[in-house]
Amino acid sequence: MKVAVVGASGYTGLELLRILLRHPEFEIAAVTSEQRAGRAVGEAFPALRGRLDLAFEANDPTALVGRVELAFTALPHAASAPTVKALREGGVRVVDLSADFRLRDLAVYEQWYGDHPAAELFAEAVYGLPELYRDSLAGASLVAAPGCYPTSALLPLAPLLRAGAVEPRGIHIDSKSGVSGAGRKASEDLLLAELEGNVKAYNAGYAHRHAPEIEQEATAAAGAEVRVSFVPHLLPTTRGIATSVYLRPREGQAFGAARAALESSYADEPFVRVLPEGELPTLQSVRGTNYCDLALVEDAHNDTWIALSTIDNLGKGASGQAVQCANLVCGMSETLGLLDTATVP
Amino acid sequence: MKVAVVGASGYTGLELLRILLRHPEFEIAAVTSEQRAGRAVGEAFPALRGRLDLAFEANDPTALVGRVELAFTALPHAASAPTVKALREGGVRVVDLSADFRLRDLAVYEQWYGDHPAAELFAEAVYGLPELYRDSLAGASLVAAPGCYPTSALLPLAPLLRAGAVEPRGIHIDSKSGVSGAGRKASEDLLLAELEGNVKAYNAGYAHRHAPEIEQEATAAAGAEVRVSFVPHLLPTTRGIATSVYLRPREGQAFGAARAALESSYADEPFVRVLPEGELPTLQSVRGTNYCDLALVEDAHNDTWIALSTIDNLGKGASGQAVQCANLVCGMSETLGLLDTATVP
Amino acid sequence: MKVAVVGASGYTGLELLRILLRHPEFEIAAVTSEQRAGRAVGEAFPALRGRLDLAFEANDPTALVGRVELAFTALPHAASAPTVKALREGGVRVVDLSADFRLRDLAVYEQWYGDHPAAELFAEAVYGLPELYRDSLAGASLVAAPGCYPTSALLPLAPLLRAGAVEPRGIHIDSKSGVSGAGRKASEDLLLAELEGNVKAYNAGYAHRHAPEIEQEATAAAGAEVRVSFVPHLLPTTRGIATSVYLRPREGQAFGAARAALESSYADEPFVRVLPEGELPTLQSVRGTNYCDLALVEDAHNDTWIALSTIDNLGKGASGQAVQCANLVCGMSETLGLLDTATVP
Amino acid sequence: MKVAVVGASGYTGLELLRILLRHPEFEIAAVTSEQRAGRAVGEAFPALRGRLDLAFEANDPTALVGRVELAFTALPHAASAPTVKALREGGVRVVDLSADFRLRDLAVYEQWYGDHPAAELFAEAVYGLPELYRDSLAGASLVAAPGCYPTSALLPLAPLLRAGAVEPRGIHIDSKSGVSGAGRKASEDLLLAELEGNVKAYNAGYAHRHAPEIEQEATAAAGAEVRVSFVPHLLPTTRGIATSVYLRPREGQAFGAARAALESSYADEPFVRVLPEGELPTLQSVRGTNYCDLALVEDAHNDTWIALSTIDNLGKGASGQAVQCANLVCGMSETLGLLDTATVP
Repeated sequence: MKVAVVGASGYTGLELLRILLRHPEFEIAAVTSEQRAGRAVGEAFPALRGRLDLAFEANDPTALVGRVELAFTALPHAASAPTVKALREGGVRVVDLSADFRLRDLAVYEQWYGDHPAAELFAEAVYGLPELYRDSLAGASLVAAPGCYPTSALLPLAPLLRAGAVEPRGIHIDSKSGVSGAGRKASEDLLLAELEGNVKAYNAGYAHRHAPEIEQEATAAAGAEVRVSFVPHLLPTTRGIATSVYLRPREGQAFGAARAALESSYADEPFVRVLPEGELPTLQSVRGTNYCDLALVEDAHNDTWIALSTIDNLGKGASGQAVQCANLVCGMSETLGLLDTATVP
Repeated sequence: MKVAVVGASGYTGLELLRILLRHPEFEIAAVTSEQRAGRAVGEAFPALRGRLDLAFEANDPTALVGRVELAFTALPHAASAPTVKALREGGVRVVDLSADFRLRDLAVYEQWYGDHPAAELFAEAVYGLPELYRDSLAGASLVAAPGCYPTSALLPLAPLLRAGAVEPRGIHIDSKSGVSGAGRKASEDLLLAELEGNVKAYNAGYAHRHAPEIEQEATAAAGAEVRVSFVPHLLPTTRGIATSVYLRPREGQAFGAARAALESSYADEPFVRVLPEGELPTLQSVRGTNYCDLALVEDAHNDTWIALSTIDNLGKGASGQAVQCANLVCGMSETLGLLDTATVP
Repeated sequence: MKVAVVGASGYTGLELLRILLRHPEFEIAAVTSEQRAGRAVGEAFPALRGRLDLAFEANDPTALVGRVELAFTALPHAASAPTVKALREGGVRVVDLSADFRLRDLAVYEQWYGDHPAAELFAEAVYGLPELYRDSLAGASLVAAPGCYPTSALLPLAPLLRAGAVEPRGIHIDSKSGVSGAGRKASEDLLLAELEGNVKAYNAGYAHRHAPEIEQEATAAAGAEVRVSFVPHLLPTTRGIATSVYLRPREGQAFGAARAALESSYADEPFVRVLPEGELPTLQSVRGTNYCDLALVEDAHNDTWIALSTIDNLGKGASGQAVQCANLVCGMSETLGLLDTATVP
Repeated sequence: MKVAVVGASGYTGLELLRILLRHPEFEIAAVTSEQRAGRAVGEAFPALRGRLDLAFEANDPTALVGRVELAFTALPHAASAPTVKALREGGVRVVDLSADFRLRDLAVYEQWYGDHPAAELFAEAVYGLPELYRDSLAGASLVAAPGCYPTSALLPLAPLLRAGAVEPRGIHIDSKSGVSGAGRKASEDLLLAELEGNVKAYNAGYAHRHAPEIEQEATAAAGAEVRVSFVPHLLPTTRGIATSVYLRPREGQAFGAARAALESSYADEPFVRVLPEGELPTLQSVRGTNYCDLALVEDAHNDTWIALSTIDNLGKGASGQAVQCANLVCGMSETLGLLDTATVP
């Protein structure tokens, strides 16, 4: 099946190419990049030399219609929506990695991102977290692949909220992310010389665009309004998100039952691994993969439970998850192209 | 004034040497290391070649009596206490960097560390956080330099608890530390190949020895029992601790007043910098220094305040703070040897 | 086809597992590890949880006979040879990643490594650099996978020496390697705290065991005695080798012709990429892969040519190359399991 | 003595501030930065908060005349020369960290850098390598602080060439540098995500501007024309240069005598440490300092000697050396402000 990667020279785009090159069913038929249009892929990205004999095209969605059955769109928010619209009008299925179709409430979108160029597509979009929306993803025409931070927070949170095990308010989410999450931007703040050995919190509190996305899906899982405080941190490395979620158990809820709920939720999931008691997740074990590793720890003396997760922000947090969704959309085996294990060491 | 560094070949010991070499009043008269006894310092540590013309001695405290007025002891817990005792019996003032005299309650010590070899010295020990105990440190004979994590948590916490601004229970402390905090240990877990780009939570909940130390001092500041959940993480770098503390404001407490309390607490402190609103602390700005940078952020929508701090775990978190205490003990200017700024970039 | 990995818990062993798990023809039927015998693979290495349902066995080669057709042996030198011997006696084909069968001259082996436990197998062993020995590898029963540094040096050197383009003496090889080349060893020297931001030359001159291996194969390519000075350096990262080789052109040899010889040597090779003029190899483009990227640069003003190469020391420098050899040994397509591109970023 | 730092917000400028803040005689009276003019230093660079109560001024040299006795100019080449000229006309002594006054031959300058705005000052400039030009630096009015790579190459080379121990042609210099040498530039190529774990050769052969600078000073030391091939590499770290120089001994020259020449050249130097035999220099031991560590190794079997050096590119390779020169210019003790040892770990 022929697919396109739109915005293929950004970090999520490159990760899509890496995964699709080993995918047995998808064939990369077109790659676009405004900045690198006309250049051969292998010349622009020497890592791909000899493996992908294509040149970047400009970002023209109409030129893709008829050539591909599915497109992955990896453009910035607001730039993505019109492209998605044109692709959909041409009958191309879309897995969109931008923020444009993640939020269900236009007012919330506008508050955090500004005007939306194609809000009429909201109804069609399915939130691309297969562990929550697998049934809706089968055969979907437009998938909104989740943000990286929301993926890392929702996978531990959803089963606990769904089970009514924890208080929906007063949740504290502390996330640490590799810098590739900021994209390839020629910015002084992202230079190795500024970040080596450095750690920086940013957008602390309720100031990051992923906070309302987390609350939207957590609220859906809880059936009650969820409130989270969210502090993202930049790590001195490229890939991965480690998230610690501080929760208060609801009155009368037993830790053992909550842990069992978490385990049973993911018992059959191919990419979520609930670790045995006593083991905590690491970035190393998921880096470069589509896995999410989870743990749940009790601190009875302070009436707190702590859920910990790790993902690769470009894998399960973006491009791996997008391919997982595409597999579902196309009725393929969900794990195609995605079973590689982490590079250790 | 002649001083000794006992256990000088560990990471806190080496950092003491680096600071003391630029200190205008202290003269390093003796350095001990069981493992490297007999070797010239500059041969064992090429960074010090040409700057310190001493050989390591064995760890024999009685051999130091009469030769030095003050000793920094940087030995593992339980190994430190007998050495400290012998030094004190010989009239040597001691700044101890181990955990042996930090906890005031012997039962708590025994629960977390095991038997204590010299608990009779508890009464003499002053907790070496100058911002909290400056008056007691002046002229003290035995100082217990605080743990690195407690320093990073208590500096933001103490003024807020003292002011009654936040709830003393349900506090969540998420800390990220460079690996030098684990000391120089030939352990597979600490190899660069295991830790590059990796992040690992450990001892999550209420399982790390620094948790009761934090609660002891936080409780003293609050005048009420404080309960914290504490999750330390290893970072893929050598130095620094970044701590985020999630707090619930007490009923009726205004954020502005709390922030003002924090600022005024540290207005005259030479090493604590409360950052202007909108700025968050980074590891880069404190690495290699004795500074602690602080911020306080409000998330009103979730009834949460977030305090953020950064220190160098070997600086303000250990050896820098030990020298600051020694300056106070000896009636010198508190900042001697400690004003260097971070290496940027 | 069932295969075993002997010594599977070291770094080359783990990389073999990662590659074999995505290999369409080889099935991992047994993994051994003296240190971790009895433990489930996924418990000892969480990155493999859910992907390999085996437990480590002790290193007993006779227990593998009859169960596997081919074994990868990833043991230290001297420990490997007896294992290889027992496997061969049981009719198991072997790709050996140790140094035990790389050198053809027993006296040279003994000079650099000490006594050899099974030198009678020298005659059977084929040096596992497919670009030089592809024909001999087809159907071979014992393959000596080359050292990582020799691979990085010989791929640029061999075509130039074979063409008689450069002087065989006075060659200078400057290599920079990730620390995984030193293996998983609980050593103070390999701690992150010792190596972050650090670079260390070691065994400079003619003191590293890979120097005679380079000379052996370079001499075979040149048809004349080759002499190299070799300086390896440890880099502050885990994976990859970047090698710069300084060469003097032979009288009358034109740079263009030499470059053409290099290009034509590798025109049909699946894993060696001679970069276009003006481009130099990077570690990023080969990390995690079986590729070797090459460049050749002329400095006419100093009568010097410089060849530059990059490989992943655990990929083309060890486990990737071992699988490439195994593919040839078994008459499979040479690239099976090996075409993945580098993780960028 | 009042001094100014012109171009204080670049990486060499910031390192000057760090060193000058601990210097007992120099007082920072003015700092300039075109990009940050008007901003308080501590606001623009939080690491300096509380330590330097100045605001950046625009780069106007005439505004400094009369206010300072000496200026450090840390501007890009070509931009520096007119500033230096204006400062000199106003009677201000200058230590210039740009390339504008390093080369003695205008034609060579023009070939590598383009037009020179103030070549008339060439005669006044002293090359700021104190180990070679100490006498000329005493009382000099204009110092051209050397390039970072040349410093790392010339300190090992000069004594060997001066002694006639090695051939002046066919020298191969392989250097590895931290990325701060590229300055603070918002460039995709310098992002952490592009450089983590990466190594890249660049300007290989005779294509880097520091090559003619090395040849100029090496030729002066040798009294014969020196030719070098030079390959710089970017390392995945911020600071430090490790250089390996491959040399051919001249006919009849003994290694022991050459080594003795190297040792005696630097026996009384405060910042050059010739390591004992068997020890090789590391970046860790010099990082953040003004030291250069050196070793010389013999490879008799290939008629090659290898000299190895490490420096901090921002320390002895730039700002540390500039302060060392300023100390000499002003008749102060040469080591003032510069004796700090490396941060280990």
